[in-house]
Amino acid sequence: MFLKNAWYGAGWSDDLGPGQMKQHFIIGQPVVLARLADGTLVALEDRCAHRAAALSYGQIEGDSLRCMYHGVRFDARTGVGLEVPGQARPSDGMRVRTYPVHVRQGWIFVWMGNPAKADLVLVPPVAGPHNREWALCHGEMDYDANYVLINDNLCDLSHLSFVHVESFGLGDASRLSAWAAERPDVTVLDRGIHVQRWVEGAPVPPFIAEKVSSGRIDRLAVYDYLAPGVFLMFAEIYPEGTCRATGGQRPTDIEPLYADFASQTVVPMTDRSTRYYFTWGARTRDTKPGMPERMRAMTIAAFKEDKRMVEMQQRIHDATPDLVFQPTVHDRGANQMRLVMKRLMEAEQAA
Amino acid sequence: MFLKNAWYGAGWSDDLGPGQMKQHFIIGQPVVLARLADGTLVALEDRCAHRAAALSYGQIEGDSLRCMYHGVRFDARTGVGLEVPGQARPSDGMRVRTYPVHVRQGWIFVWMGNPAKADLVLVPPVAGPHNREWALCHGEMDYDANYVLINDNLCDLSHLSFVHVESFGLGDASRLSAWAAERPDVTVLDRGIHVQRWVEGAPVPPFIAEKVSSGRIDRLAVYDYLAPGVFLMFAEIYPEGTCRATGGQRPTDIEPLYADFASQTVVPMTDRSTRYYFTWGARTRDTKPGMPERMRAMTIAAFKEDKRMVEMQQRIHDATPDLVFQPTVHDRGANQMRLVMKRLMEAEQAA
Amino acid sequence: MFLKNAWYGAGWSDDLGPGQMKQHFIIGQPVVLARLADGTLVALEDRCAHRAAALSYGQIEGDSLRCMYHGVRFDARTGVGLEVPGQARPSDGMRVRTYPVHVRQGWIFVWMGNPAKADLVLVPPVAGPHNREWALCHGEMDYDANYVLINDNLCDLSHLSFVHVESFGLGDASRLSAWAAERPDVTVLDRGIHVQRWVEGAPVPPFIAEKVSSGRIDRLAVYDYLAPGVFLMFAEIYPEGTCRATGGQRPTDIEPLYADFASQTVVPMTDRSTRYYFTWGARTRDTKPGMPERMRAMTIAAFKEDKRMVEMQQRIHDATPDLVFQPTVHDRGANQMRLVMKRLMEAEQAA
Repeated sequence: MFLKNAWYGAGWSDDLGPGQMKQHFIIGQPVVLARLADGTLVALEDRCAHRAAALSYGQIEGDSLRCMYHGVRFDARTGVGLEVPGQARPSDGMRVRTYPVHVRQGWIFVWMGNPAKADLVLVPPVAGPHNREWALCHGEMDYDANYVLINDNLCDLSHLSFVHVESFGLGDASRLSAWAAERPDVTVLDRGIHVQRWVEGAPVPPFIAEKVSSGRIDRLAVYDYLAPGVFLMFAEIYPEGTCRATGGQRPTDIEPLYADFASQTVVPMTDRSTRYYFTWGARTRDTKPGMPERMRAMTIAAFKEDKRMVEMQQRIHDATPDLVFQPTVHDRGANQMRLVMKRLMEAEQAA
Repeated sequence: MFLKNAWYGAGWSDDLGPGQMKQHFIIGQPVVLARLADGTLVALEDRCAHRAAALSYGQIEGDSLRCMYHGVRFDARTGVGLEVPGQARPSDGMRVRTYPVHVRQGWIFVWMGNPAKADLVLVPPVAGPHNREWALCHGEMDYDANYVLINDNLCDLSHLSFVHVESFGLGDASRLSAWAAERPDVTVLDRGIHVQRWVEGAPVPPFIAEKVSSGRIDRLAVYDYLAPGVFLMFAEIYPEGTCRATGGQRPTDIEPLYADFASQTVVPMTDRSTRYYFTWGARTRDTKPGMPERMRAMTIAAFKEDKRMVEMQQRIHDATPDLVFQPTVHDRGANQMRLVMKRLMEAEQAA
Repeated sequence: MFLKNAWYGAGWSDDLGPGQMKQHFIIGQPVVLARLADGTLVALEDRCAHRAAALSYGQIEGDSLRCMYHGVRFDARTGVGLEVPGQARPSDGMRVRTYPVHVRQGWIFVWMGNPAKADLVLVPPVAGPHNREWALCHGEMDYDANYVLINDNLCDLSHLSFVHVESFGLGDASRLSAWAAERPDVTVLDRGIHVQRWVEGAPVPPFIAEKVSSGRIDRLAVYDYLAPGVFLMFAEIYPEGTCRATGGQRPTDIEPLYADFASQTVVPMTDRSTRYYFTWGARTRDTKPGMPERMRAMTIAAFKEDKRMVEMQQRIHDATPDLVFQPTVHDRGANQMRLVMKRLMEAEQAA
């Protein structure tokens, strides 16, 4: 089951030049994204109303898409059938669904539900490849797993201490690090959760040694996880004592010594396959030569660790579907996020 | 659901030498074709009556087939069990089904239904590799799609103007060509449809320029599509004015300036896989050196275009099984053919 | 459906060094085998009680296994949860199932049912890679088939005369050899069948020509096939007349001139995939240089012949699930074994 009334990631705007189309499967539905000659991006049902051929195998003609099976042509902006070769005019039913589409920071988002409910306020506040404030790498990865298992993964970062020992180089000592040893603050939002975690008096990492006079720093990790699967995390470093000084609030008037920002979206393709898009990087001003490349390599390595773990988890779920989860203190984020999704889907069904 | 009482294509006679066997799956059933030493071709259930091993993994011994799992031997012509090693004689039930088999023009056909109803009149009037009148290329291709989608494809040739722009080199102008712009005459037959289409006053194609004095010609395409999936098409070129002179009838006393003939059969292997056999070529007298090779390359290129389109269509059908087709004027052939198949299958079920 | 109360093969003890783990799927269940630092071998449910991640992707820490998803740690011997990072102590339900495990002769066996019923008497009396009496090759092979078809294969060795003509080099004459022409003695056991077959006055095989004065020998093949899929076969050669002298009993006081011994276990992974482990070889005293290597090559060749036949048999079963087997005189072993399995599974269900 999927949430329909939501913005789903659908690739990178840069990858789709004028006259180009790309097929996506999103929450089980075939969707074609097309860039018209004037640069307009449209998203339509990738299923010709005539006999269900893929419009993405067709071609863009001005402001219309022609199915190259039997030549039916649709208005690219409205989905209305414009031409059936050999026929005076198309039947009224000859139309395909259009989806609201929005580009933010080079990310393409498609609204899969009722277009009347498409709300730009809900477009995830991601940062994209051309952001000036952040020097971001970007990429994507496909999982052979249901998206809920990936949501679970991202809503409980205690897994960092275990899954990513190698990629993040946390070492054995990390087990008792704050990620796993202490609970973050989890706040439930209308459409997600908010997670915050301070590590006070941590050692100074080499890459900011020059900025720090005392021998210790405070670290803050803060993220929103938004329905249906959007992860937006700031990792920040502050002078020692900042946490105490703000009473645990995220500082509003203190500049972090260092900050990076990750945007990630989890997009169900089918019930058992999911596409994952991400950007990640440090503030531009904190970025040194080679840093984005190293960050990208580390990110990909880390995501492969997640993918391996989660795909086997899926396989075990499938082999033993009667399983029961045993709770831990770290489940709160993942469980609350499941409840948020349940609430949203039930409301959507009821409407 | 499949039609059983029908002749299904099962490969090329030349490919099966004496002592050779080949396994086919036809309408979901395993079938072994075997060429006996005297040249007789037989078709049997490829499923040993003992424990369902493949007879096609066995060997031909004289007029019998021996299953090489436990050695049970069957009469290759009747399917009756002849020998069970170590047993005085086989039980009465030890027999496999035989299928009527017929070779026409080098095509092998197998009757998958009630043998008593196997009617040679129904063997498709294909032309084969050794035909003297036609210089034919031949080949085969497998689709990951249900056969009905391929029948649909072949019963509505308006797709030529779109799917095959590249392979047939029709160019953009072709969109308004007769294939897509005008409806052919479709006549419903007892076991199929008959489709005919004239294009009057067409430009003279280069390869017959020498035969044509005036600057224009009339083109005729005429084909039968017969249950369960047999396409037999003549494409002919006549002097300009022929269509008018015959009142649109296919000429009986005027030789075409040029003619080619395509025989194609669509053979369901399973519900989601289909094998496709074809021959195609011009009249031998119209054939110049290199022409069959070029025709074969073009044919294969065109069929790959169909395959790509139809396989994605199948995938979209599977993802969104609740789809509804919107009709066009060109659907008549495909729809009538679906009705013919429905009628035949219902009659078969009722009998 | 699978028998649970049984020892199932799970690889070779030598392949699992201290600190190593290996994942198996046995009768559909994920199982992790782990070798602790002190050499103890343990088998546990390969499914973390927390969120069903694979413990086999984790690591061994002393006498415990840590899931490397969120760090939950289990006692490797009892399955009891020992640690949940960040939590005072694990919940009572935080435990994974343990499976009794036993190593015999280098073979690992896991008891998949009620641990209280795990009976060492039922550990298959296999011979393993380091056996001194037998010079054994060993290996494994995966089948895309249900295990019952493999049990059937091994319970009716009349197939040797047909499936293995090439690998065993029996030649055409073998068809009327004892394997297929005569029935073995089949005795039903509590948990399997016992099969015995004499061939009297057979020609002397070259490799024991030096030991035999007369021109003929008696051959004995005797095997147990035990639930759920254990094949233990002795092939022995005796002086001519031995069978007559013992009244067909296996000699207790006559040394065979030659003997080899095969141990094989059939382990269902899923309903449609099965792992097969084997050792095979002659008595060490009968073994000449190069013999084990030749025997291994022949064994693998023969098992590939079985695999090809059985996998196609599975495919035919799946295509035509309504099939009915026609009996032969050689079915007794396979049928009795199916009945033994049915009886054992019904008793298990009833308990």
